[in-house]
Amino acid sequence: MSEHKRVLIVGGVAGGASAAARGRRLSEEAEIVLFERGEHISFANCGLPYHIGEVIAKRESLLIQTPESMARRFNIDVRTRCEVVSIDPKAHTVVVRDLDGGGVENVEAYDKLILSPGAEPVAPPIPGADLPGVHTLRNIADMDAIKQAVDAGGPERAVVVGGGYIGLEMAEALTLRGVEVTLVELADQVFIAADAEMAAPLHQQLESHGVDLRLGVSVSSIAADGAGLKVGLSSDEFVECGLVIMAVGVRPETKLAREAGLAIGSTGGIAVDEHMQTSDPDIYAVGDAVEVTEFVGGGGALIPLAGPANRQGRIAADNIFGRPSVYRRTQGTAICKLFDLAIGMTGMSEKALAGAGMSYEKVYTHAASHAGYYPGAAPLSLKLLFDPETGRILGAQGVGADGVDKRIDVLAVAIRAGLTVEQLQDMELSYAPPFGSAKDPVNYAAFVACNVMAGDVKLCHSADMLAPGDGQVLLDVRTRGEVDGGTISGAMHIPVDDLRGRLGELPAGKEFLVFCAVGLRGYLACRILSQNGIACRNLTGGYKTFKAFSERGIG
Amino acid sequence: MSEHKRVLIVGGVAGGASAAARGRRLSEEAEIVLFERGEHISFANCGLPYHIGEVIAKRESLLIQTPESMARRFNIDVRTRCEVVSIDPKAHTVVVRDLDGGGVENVEAYDKLILSPGAEPVAPPIPGADLPGVHTLRNIADMDAIKQAVDAGGPERAVVVGGGYIGLEMAEALTLRGVEVTLVELADQVFIAADAEMAAPLHQQLESHGVDLRLGVSVSSIAADGAGLKVGLSSDEFVECGLVIMAVGVRPETKLAREAGLAIGSTGGIAVDEHMQTSDPDIYAVGDAVEVTEFVGGGGALIPLAGPANRQGRIAADNIFGRPSVYRRTQGTAICKLFDLAIGMTGMSEKALAGAGMSYEKVYTHAASHAGYYPGAAPLSLKLLFDPETGRILGAQGVGADGVDKRIDVLAVAIRAGLTVEQLQDMELSYAPPFGSAKDPVNYAAFVACNVMAGDVKLCHSADMLAPGDGQVLLDVRTRGEVDGGTISGAMHIPVDDLRGRLGELPAGKEFLVFCAVGLRGYLACRILSQNGIACRNLTGGYKTFKAFSERGIG
Repeated sequence: MSEHKRVLIVGGVAGGASAAARGRRLSEEAEIVLFERGEHISFANCGLPYHIGEVIAKRESLLIQTPESMARRFNIDVRTRCEVVSIDPKAHTVVVRDLDGGGVENVEAYDKLILSPGAEPVAPPIPGADLPGVHTLRNIADMDAIKQAVDAGGPERAVVVGGGYIGLEMAEALTLRGVEVTLVELADQVFIAADAEMAAPLHQQLESHGVDLRLGVSVSSIAADGAGLKVGLSSDEFVECGLVIMAVGVRPETKLAREAGLAIGSTGGIAVDEHMQTSDPDIYAVGDAVEVTEFVGGGGALIPLAGPANRQGRIAADNIFGRPSVYRRTQGTAICKLFDLAIGMTGMSEKALAGAGMSYEKVYTHAASHAGYYPGAAPLSLKLLFDPETGRILGAQGVGADGVDKRIDVLAVAIRAGLTVEQLQDMELSYAPPFGSAKDPVNYAAFVACNVMAGDVKLCHSADMLAPGDGQVLLDVRTRGEVDGGTISGAMHIPVDDLRGRLGELPAGKEFLVFCAVGLRGYLACRILSQNGIACRNLTGGYKTFKAFSERGIG
Repeated sequence: MSEHKRVLIVGGVAGGASAAARGRRLSEEAEIVLFERGEHISFANCGLPYHIGEVIAKRESLLIQTPESMARRFNIDVRTRCEVVSIDPKAHTVVVRDLDGGGVENVEAYDKLILSPGAEPVAPPIPGADLPGVHTLRNIADMDAIKQAVDAGGPERAVVVGGGYIGLEMAEALTLRGVEVTLVELADQVFIAADAEMAAPLHQQLESHGVDLRLGVSVSSIAADGAGLKVGLSSDEFVECGLVIMAVGVRPETKLAREAGLAIGSTGGIAVDEHMQTSDPDIYAVGDAVEVTEFVGGGGALIPLAGPANRQGRIAADNIFGRPSVYRRTQGTAICKLFDLAIGMTGMSEKALAGAGMSYEKVYTHAASHAGYYPGAAPLSLKLLFDPETGRILGAQGVGADGVDKRIDVLAVAIRAGLTVEQLQDMELSYAPPFGSAKDPVNYAAFVACNVMAGDVKLCHSADMLAPGDGQVLLDVRTRGEVDGGTISGAMHIPVDDLRGRLGELPAGKEFLVFCAVGLRGYLACRILSQNGIACRNLTGGYKTFKAFSERGIG
């Protein structure tokens, strides 16, 4: 194989930059040209909201590589402000428009082409969405524009449209800058990748930081209003503000690929095989523009994440330079910080499993992020989804102020390795009081799942508590003081420590839906009941999960 | 199988308490008696140094279960201050001495017996080691005695003997209390479970917090000296102090087991099978007193850790109550905080691999704990040990101020799942700027290992740099400014960004031992050199690892 290849790369961020660097390490002789429409390559796009919020003080720190440093270190021909406007796959050429050169167009030939165009913000057809003061946030220029508006002291209030990553991070950033924020989200929860009851703490977090959260609401219009803007909502209300951030999501940027006749997947991303090769064998595509295969369920999916984009860039370069390396699907491991909380997930959510018609069981745990007696421990809620037949771990979500990233990463490896909940319970994790517990929250979640698998306890879920069947009785096994602080309507009460002596008080022939605060005492109560021949189920996650579930939509 | 068993448990902490609770959940009918020599059961022994250091303010918070709460919730007959002094395996009885009842001895019958006696501090035969003011730290009473001495304002200086967990944690605790500390360690490093170059930052950390660190030194005598103590060292020096903490290690407490004729493993721990069953089928043993099988290499080992002890207790109870569950070896995942640093490890160390004659390669990386542009990122050094033939991960160590626990846990799961470095590089971990990087330090370490496996680069190690062969030339590819801050003796210098244009300056026929700051630019330089037909090796971990290696013993 000759290495005197000419490789063109479209897009200089994440996947494109990774492909360029990897390509050079594999071949000193190849000619590698990187085209980037914007001014900057390889910038830290995940850092943009944090510079607006002044958490990251220096703008330059977001510019990881400059065109000059990339050119010098990797001998890459970097051409910024150059937009590739068309591809001729037969001729093996692209047309490049020089945005600073009066739009002059040149034809460039390639042996291999790598597309890394990314994803573009979805622009809903809202009247007024093109007004000055309405922004999206995708690149350094967008960031500069928003920051300038805030620095100038213009907006007293901003409306952030969309409760995904960018929406949540911008709500935080603007709040930190002293701007009042109204966050509008069409769904009944923010961070819709996660399940609603796991996102519920984010709603409380937003409200406790003064964000005006509007769930189940969309924007119907934006109008100029003196020096500001007037945002009309589907609830027939209006919000006056000085700034609107449109962050309703992104979609793959596929125009170039479509026009070149490349195959597009059913999800709307560029179709690629496991080598990141498109339907044209000399064209590769990577990053947020491509359709990936979801790891657990195997379906096609759009999962725009920085880690996978970087890996895909590396793999495309590998294959171009004679190494048949393989991209092994995307499992959607993700995390988002929101003020003092983090929410993370990996694998499939419950809604994704239900949508795919896959069989699953779920358990919830609420443990401390590290030994409770050591300062700084914070509550950590985990949701573990697993196959009830095989015990295979299908997905996990976590929310809390501390240690979420660690547990999600542990569970991400477990899912990637195809482990079962039985294997997870044996996992030997690092323990000292500042860092964890002798039984880590991950072990503990696995214990709970294994108890279900072993038939030691039957579970019930929050929805069951709201509509118990005829033969079912709710049984609260917490202390008197806990019950006085609130319980589930209709529950009878016997503290677990008294249960052995008070079994006679239980009505005969019933199934008891047992609950405690988080599920631990409920499990013990169920063991006592079932060994005494009394039918019972334990509410997984206890009253804490019930509260999150029943109040999930309350912003 | 009848569940009307009488189960006696010897030792009420960690493994013993776990076995009791699990036993009750499996059988409401069994009689379970828990004997504990001390006053307290189920206390947080890992928290003891932190209460002395007043990091944990409340003594009560260390008492996880009281005898009363355990009795009430789990219907366990808890007998504190009761020491089991002998076992008659044939008669299925033990003799129990009531330490508060004038030493009265009673005979108790069992169907099944669980031994959880723990490990006892090693008491080296040092003259004066029994003087008042010389302490070990194993239980609440020991903690109280040490704290009382510090609270009373007695000691201006303390000598801590031993640089393991307890020694390091006590050095920190006493320093926090304003006591000057001399830390004496016989080895040339502290935390000897880890390799010396990884422990080197701990030495700097101790010194920067004012601890007088004496490596390669032992205590030869302790003598009363007025109101204080005079500690004689093997270096013929004397240290005057008011307090001595003996923390030279622990050994399994096996007297009871030996006298009962139970088999003892070659390491000195009680021999058990994978069901935690001893050589007597009606006697189980768990926790720090037993010999475990090390996960990676399969050898017998003493690995006293809280997590495994708890799991073993659960497994012993499982087997007693008819569930043939299996303990799946110990991989030695551990972490220790020392002031602002943490050091963690999992799997086998380099010295353990070398000792076992196993084949291995090692790579070092120094990355930021999260995105460098987001506040709070700290350097994180990883060492990854793997099988050079198969790529199987054999062990990992990490040291740094932030995120060590997370990476060690990720690697612990990878080792437990039998993953290779190729699989590790694909690992999809959670990323947002406050938590990680798009290429996590773990991915990055795996990339480096995979580059070695693929033959893309040959490595050299710090020891090679100190004694290059005849045909070898050291080549520093860092910037001028970095070189001016210090380099390796005898190295020539060409910055990586200039290397392509200056290949002609390299002497012909040599092998270049290339290094940069951490190994990344060195790798690129090696790619440039080898593609130009020039023999080369990259120093893994770069100058940073070289410094830790060459200065490792400097306290």
